[in-house]
Amino acid sequence: MSGQGNEASHALAELKAKVDGEPIASLLEMHLLELSQGHAKVTMKLVPEYQNFNGLIFGGIIMAVADQAFAYASNSLTHPSIASQFNIHFLAGASIGDELTAECWVLKSGRRVGISEMTVTNQKGKIIAKATGTTIPMARLNH
Amino acid sequence: MSGQGNEASHALAELKAKVDGEPIASLLEMHLLELSQGHAKVTMKLVPEYQNFNGLIFGGIIMAVADQAFAYASNSLTHPSIASQFNIHFLAGASIGDELTAECWVLKSGRRVGISEMTVTNQKGKIIAKATGTTIPMARLNH
Amino acid sequence: MSGQGNEASHALAELKAKVDGEPIASLLEMHLLELSQGHAKVTMKLVPEYQNFNGLIFGGIIMAVADQAFAYASNSLTHPSIASQFNIHFLAGASIGDELTAECWVLKSGRRVGISEMTVTNQKGKIIAKATGTTIPMARLNH
Amino acid sequence: MSGQGNEASHALAELKAKVDGEPIASLLEMHLLELSQGHAKVTMKLVPEYQNFNGLIFGGIIMAVADQAFAYASNSLTHPSIASQFNIHFLAGASIGDELTAECWVLKSGRRVGISEMTVTNQKGKIIAKATGTTIPMARLNH
Repeated sequence: MSGQGNEASHALAELKAKVDGEPIASLLEMHLLELSQGHAKVTMKLVPEYQNFNGLIFGGIIMAVADQAFAYASNSLTHPSIASQFNIHFLAGASIGDELTAECWVLKSGRRVGISEMTVTNQKGKIIAKATGTTIPMARLNH
Repeated sequence: MSGQGNEASHALAELKAKVDGEPIASLLEMHLLELSQGHAKVTMKLVPEYQNFNGLIFGGIIMAVADQAFAYASNSLTHPSIASQFNIHFLAGASIGDELTAECWVLKSGRRVGISEMTVTNQKGKIIAKATGTTIPMARLNH
Repeated sequence: MSGQGNEASHALAELKAKVDGEPIASLLEMHLLELSQGHAKVTMKLVPEYQNFNGLIFGGIIMAVADQAFAYASNSLTHPSIASQFNIHFLAGASIGDELTAECWVLKSGRRVGISEMTVTNQKGKIIAKATGTTIPMARLNH
Repeated sequence: MSGQGNEASHALAELKAKVDGEPIASLLEMHLLELSQGHAKVTMKLVPEYQNFNGLIFGGIIMAVADQAFAYASNSLTHPSIASQFNIHFLAGASIGDELTAECWVLKSGRRVGISEMTVTNQKGKIIAKATGTTIPMARLNH
């Protein structure tokens, strides 16, 4: 148990050292707002560049901000962890100018597999999307 | 049946008229390679900007190219259609410089719901990811 | 809004009238413990008949009890609603003799689509599985 | 590579020895029709006991037959493997008297994770459901 705690502390410290200057965060202007063991909060402002052919916000952008919170939260406990699966439900539309917040909580962080859930809300607290995902810890087989 | 055929032809023509200058396609450099009723093929070259904090390609980018093929294929039959759900499995890693191809086939295009499946492959034909998704036709309740 | 409220009251009353003597509930000994608009709780005792070839509880049984709560909760708001998609994550194992409780909450109950989430816990309150699903209201196109 | 082949042969042999008298297969009358490395085919006849409160076939029954093919196919390559996640889309309804066939193909069978896809068809070859799932090989960390 304390071994797991030490490992998670180590994972969190390693992750924090890598966050600055992350290329995809710059490209999509995603900002890490909170990071602790098993939890992360990321924000993203919706700009006109995110529109699809229907003039709506591209679904992949909503997935991206959820995935960013997912990556941070899962790597805060076991690092590196790789996403193996991700499922998302879209509950409400989002519009240009909205400020989205994606939050991820790790539900299970096992030796072989991790399971997380995410929520994406807008600036009014309305739920835009809910997601879940599976991560695989990558260091385990080498120990 | 011929009514459905007409509607799908109409949807496809409408969609084709909207594809040029799509903002998200420009931002993420996604190119529509093929589009027919119920099928779409989209390509994307992986650039350094798509890296995450681990130096790996951000999962959300793989989702984005799959989602773009999904949006085109589902809207080619009923337009507009909105994604309600999307699930993806990552089978192999992708690297900077890879040329990804996302392909989507609509499995079911009903009056109330559509179901599609997608494959993302690299330039060697290796499967990087497989996905499935649910779309809701938006015009139905107005008729 | 009051129209929706009336419709949901009607759906709930109709559903309650159909619950008794449901064949699948008898076969799998699933018991409806609570039912209100947008929420249902179902229990199931794990018997030796549910074991798979590994001597473990068959995953499809965990899915079944989650699906039963899902069906009740979604039909309590719009009736009939048909499941279009269901995704589950298994977080912990279950054993013969365990008393499972599946609970479902409807997150969105729209004119065209419903989205729900479920939790399956054991008699100690431990989370065995979490699931989400999509339902399609079936009466809408006839109105 | 030959090590993997040997392991898979061993897994398949072990699995075949366990198939007879499987409790859940008896309860739900699921029959294993074909089993080879990475592939399984299971049949199930839909009986009146599988009806839900709407007089329709309970969705969890469709999930069960898909999950049974999933369990056999994934365990034919690495044994024991445990399902971590499962996602299903329902494409068409099924009726009492239908003879369903669930087929599963393993897409990836890695040291840490397996990914599979399934199809459920009726006696006319019509697709009733498509599913995908994630498995975790359980023996790896002990070696």
